[in-house]
Amino acid sequence: MRIVVLAGGIGGARFLRGLKAAVPEAEITVVGNTGDDIHLFGLKVCPDLDTVMYTLGDGINEEQGWGRRDESWSIREEMAAYGVEPTWFGLGDRDYATHIVRTQMLGAGYPLSAVTEALCARWQPGVRLIPMSDDRVETHVVIDDPDKPGTRKAVHFQEYWVRLRAAPTAHAIVPVGIETAKPAPGVLEAIAEADLILFPPSNPVVSVGTILGVPGIREALVAAEAPVIGLSPIIGGAPVRGMADRVLEAVGVETSAAAVAQHYGPGLLDGWLVDTIDAAAVLSVEAAGIPCRAIPLLMSDVEATAEMARAALALADEVR
Amino acid sequence: MRIVVLAGGIGGARFLRGLKAAVPEAEITVVGNTGDDIHLFGLKVCPDLDTVMYTLGDGINEEQGWGRRDESWSIREEMAAYGVEPTWFGLGDRDYATHIVRTQMLGAGYPLSAVTEALCARWQPGVRLIPMSDDRVETHVVIDDPDKPGTRKAVHFQEYWVRLRAAPTAHAIVPVGIETAKPAPGVLEAIAEADLILFPPSNPVVSVGTILGVPGIREALVAAEAPVIGLSPIIGGAPVRGMADRVLEAVGVETSAAAVAQHYGPGLLDGWLVDTIDAAAVLSVEAAGIPCRAIPLLMSDVEATAEMARAALALADEVR
Repeated sequence: MRIVVLAGGIGGARFLRGLKAAVPEAEITVVGNTGDDIHLFGLKVCPDLDTVMYTLGDGINEEQGWGRRDESWSIREEMAAYGVEPTWFGLGDRDYATHIVRTQMLGAGYPLSAVTEALCARWQPGVRLIPMSDDRVETHVVIDDPDKPGTRKAVHFQEYWVRLRAAPTAHAIVPVGIETAKPAPGVLEAIAEADLILFPPSNPVVSVGTILGVPGIREALVAAEAPVIGLSPIIGGAPVRGMADRVLEAVGVETSAAAVAQHYGPGLLDGWLVDTIDAAAVLSVEAAGIPCRAIPLLMSDVEATAEMARAALALADEVR
Repeated sequence: MRIVVLAGGIGGARFLRGLKAAVPEAEITVVGNTGDDIHLFGLKVCPDLDTVMYTLGDGINEEQGWGRRDESWSIREEMAAYGVEPTWFGLGDRDYATHIVRTQMLGAGYPLSAVTEALCARWQPGVRLIPMSDDRVETHVVIDDPDKPGTRKAVHFQEYWVRLRAAPTAHAIVPVGIETAKPAPGVLEAIAEADLILFPPSNPVVSVGTILGVPGIREALVAAEAPVIGLSPIIGGAPVRGMADRVLEAVGVETSAAAVAQHYGPGLLDGWLVDTIDAAAVLSVEAAGIPCRAIPLLMSDVEATAEMARAALALADEVR
């Protein structure tokens, strides 16, 4: 079975671990979000791709969900001693090595997809990990400018998310460069040939939403023969993790399992899974034309997550 | 008193520490060798400048003479895990931070001299450290090609020195790019305005020799009013440290305190210090037209090194 998964960072990575446990024989292609990518200290950092790679390659720091296990922080100390900004983005020494290798390869002319494949040759994530695009897309968030009352400014998504902890109201989410971005080699083919397509409980705006914004990807998903099944990242009216409510607000979508399904739309989704606590939403989602089931959606461990994956497969079989 | 010192790495840095102790009130300008610079993993590494900066800024690893104290080695482990070459050049995590900051600033368009000044703002070495040139000069060593008997090839100086431990015979030393290199801003002015110019016991071929090869620097030294006093890096027919004999051979100079003085030449040197063990060389050096004294030249500690600096000052006063 060939499965395509559109993944953001922590939520996507953890779901993928459960999916691999549920269907170890499946060929899984992961289309990773690169809208969160950022250049720091002259290095190209791809937080979502790395979280997937480290998580599936058994190198992740389990407690924090991102970054490396057994990490050291010498460079961070040095950067502070040099007075170099920014200080709010946490890069450990082992993590730096990945960014150094990536930046060197990009500088030598390799596209991000080839670089990602090279990095994965070490990590052996057990999936084929492809960035959504080899072209640079950078998500910015429009907020009020605290220095100039009455005016707004755009900040990099990571500045909004990490430095500002999503506290300011987001007026708009702007994936800079997306209009001209092309899907990376293999993305459209994988979607066309898939037996199943999954949206894990990743952020529907800045993770899955950004991937869907790359011209050609949404169209390929709609045209695909395989059913598209999503899992709600919202449980009981709140994000399971992260601050998805802050960016859903920016795109005018209520923070609820049903609203996210309708935001993706029945033209795209062939099935939607909500948590048992949101069982009442099943009827309204189905009324909107999207088959829906309520199951436990907390990824508390690999087995619980594998159960979620099995439920997605079962729903796909139902709607196929 | 204004003193200009032409310095390589470890020998130059240790001498400078003694010089500062001997004349704490002096304004010292260090013209640093950049022929040893190398690009590793896409980062610009300046071993000699950093050794001077870390040594005088109290960040050096005293035992090894290069690199940082309290260093961690996570990135080296990661590079090995990624299978990235080269593995023979030791860069610790704290050291990496310096190269990352430097590379980012160079990428932003700052010349190496401005970058070095910025790095020194943190380290406060107590001297003005200027690279010999802002232009790229890279010393290569011509050796027999072990893969193609009968032919020769050029390798980067660091590959010769660090990876091959100077074992192959060096047929030639080629400072690539030196013909078109210009002295960095401030170098010629410092030489012209100096009260004293010193050649510390650095490598006469690949450290001091490379600096002298930058068009304009040798001429400025010859024209300078200040006496030029050198300290022999050769004691008893062998380098005190390192493998200077291997590169002296390449330029046809005997490994002796007297031969190095004559290699620099009486047109350049106004005085030469040899070790007491080489006292017999004093007559031949003076016969060659260079005032010479024999004193203990082992930089065993800061006070012994300060004594060497005082002897250089005394000889300068004699010949002035």
